[in-house]
Amino acid sequence: MISITIIGSGNVAQHLIKAISKTTILEVTQVYVRNIDSVSHLIDYDKITNDISKLKNADLYIISVSDDAIQTVSKSLFFSNKLVAHTSGSVAMEELSDNNRKAVLYPLQTLSKKKEVDFTTVPLCIEAQNEADLQLLTEVAQNLSDHVYNVDSEQRKSLHVAAVFVSNFVNHLYKIGSDICIEHKVPFEILKPLILETAKKVQIMEPNEAQTGPAKRNDTSTINKHLAILTDENQKDIYKILTKSIIDNGKKL
Amino acid sequence: MISITIIGSGNVAQHLIKAISKTTILEVTQVYVRNIDSVSHLIDYDKITNDISKLKNADLYIISVSDDAIQTVSKSLFFSNKLVAHTSGSVAMEELSDNNRKAVLYPLQTLSKKKEVDFTTVPLCIEAQNEADLQLLTEVAQNLSDHVYNVDSEQRKSLHVAAVFVSNFVNHLYKIGSDICIEHKVPFEILKPLILETAKKVQIMEPNEAQTGPAKRNDTSTINKHLAILTDENQKDIYKILTKSIIDNGKKL
Repeated sequence: MISITIIGSGNVAQHLIKAISKTTILEVTQVYVRNIDSVSHLIDYDKITNDISKLKNADLYIISVSDDAIQTVSKSLFFSNKLVAHTSGSVAMEELSDNNRKAVLYPLQTLSKKKEVDFTTVPLCIEAQNEADLQLLTEVAQNLSDHVYNVDSEQRKSLHVAAVFVSNFVNHLYKIGSDICIEHKVPFEILKPLILETAKKVQIMEPNEAQTGPAKRNDTSTINKHLAILTDENQKDIYKILTKSIIDNGKKL
Repeated sequence: MISITIIGSGNVAQHLIKAISKTTILEVTQVYVRNIDSVSHLIDYDKITNDISKLKNADLYIISVSDDAIQTVSKSLFFSNKLVAHTSGSVAMEELSDNNRKAVLYPLQTLSKKKEVDFTTVPLCIEAQNEADLQLLTEVAQNLSDHVYNVDSEQRKSLHVAAVFVSNFVNHLYKIGSDICIEHKVPFEILKPLILETAKKVQIMEPNEAQTGPAKRNDTSTINKHLAILTDENQKDIYKILTKSIIDNGKKL
């Protein structure tokens, strides 16, 4: 068995605890949280602690806290030369304390407590300081997911930016679509199959090949009609810059 | 049987021919195209014509051509007082010629010739000038799809704008994500589960509730790190305005 201690109680920490519990080779030794009740629905009370000095020995410690707390938490660990990983997309591995061997296990998926996710489908981006640690981390990751990638800190940063575009920003465009529907009294429901099909298309086609719409066709008449319908300044600005970017992209080809 | 003539050979026309052929109540009487070979893989040669004067009698004529050709094509029909529908999201029903009874059958889905779509899942937005025509159109639409909506020309225009945001613009954000991956030598593949999950989330959650990311948290440090990674001016501008819009939206709540 590979023993793992989870430090934190956020979305990623909770999904990790659940995913580890489903394997036969990995086990959660302990969970460190500020508030014991925050994870008591996931694991036995005797494995939860809110006293950092009571952390037991484990093969891997996973720090899953907010980005700006990672450094402080890693420095607060009293032991040394153990394997300590964080789970952040935008924090470099080097930012972990030098007291321990550093690693990263970054699940590239949108995880919320409310929605169940099949963790075996979540891409895991891993990184470690030395070959032996990378091997252990690979074994851990492969037991949790079918999609494991070796990604260094620089690559991970750029992946995180790309993820903001294809997920956070995409979701905001869904929000704008919903706002337009509310304003004009049409059900947002009508757009849901289109949203799903657009995401499914790029699973098998290049995004460039899948591009359609007035900007792609440089259809100025429709573009101007659309701008006249929009009443919100941010919506107008977003429409203009995305249209410009699609048109500029067409010119490059 | 309800007899239908299709005018046009584009993506929508081809998907309609296939979908109608699968029903027991609707039949394609004839297809009018410029180039007979463009639809000969879908329907018998004797039902295809490239001579507009040879159009036979039908219960419904569906004009499925590019937006700027709809008016001209509808005026070129030699008969009168028949039911004629177009399939466009952004053209008003009124733009059809007064010679015939006007209607709209707008499939709100991204349809490409390359990718099969289950037409029964495609939302169909319908509109007609009088109650009897709306009844016939409803019967046609309900035989093609499980999702039929009565949507007037004004609502349809705003739906079309919303569709540009949640599909065309979303696809362009996928393109940018892909470009960032190529630039930093990481496989775009890693982002595909995230893309799908983000689209699935809003099938059951409000987009506003599903929003995550640095802009949502007003995390200026991560936002600035991301802007420093981006090298393309359009990408930077898109990052800035979408971040501003998410932050402004948070203030409204």
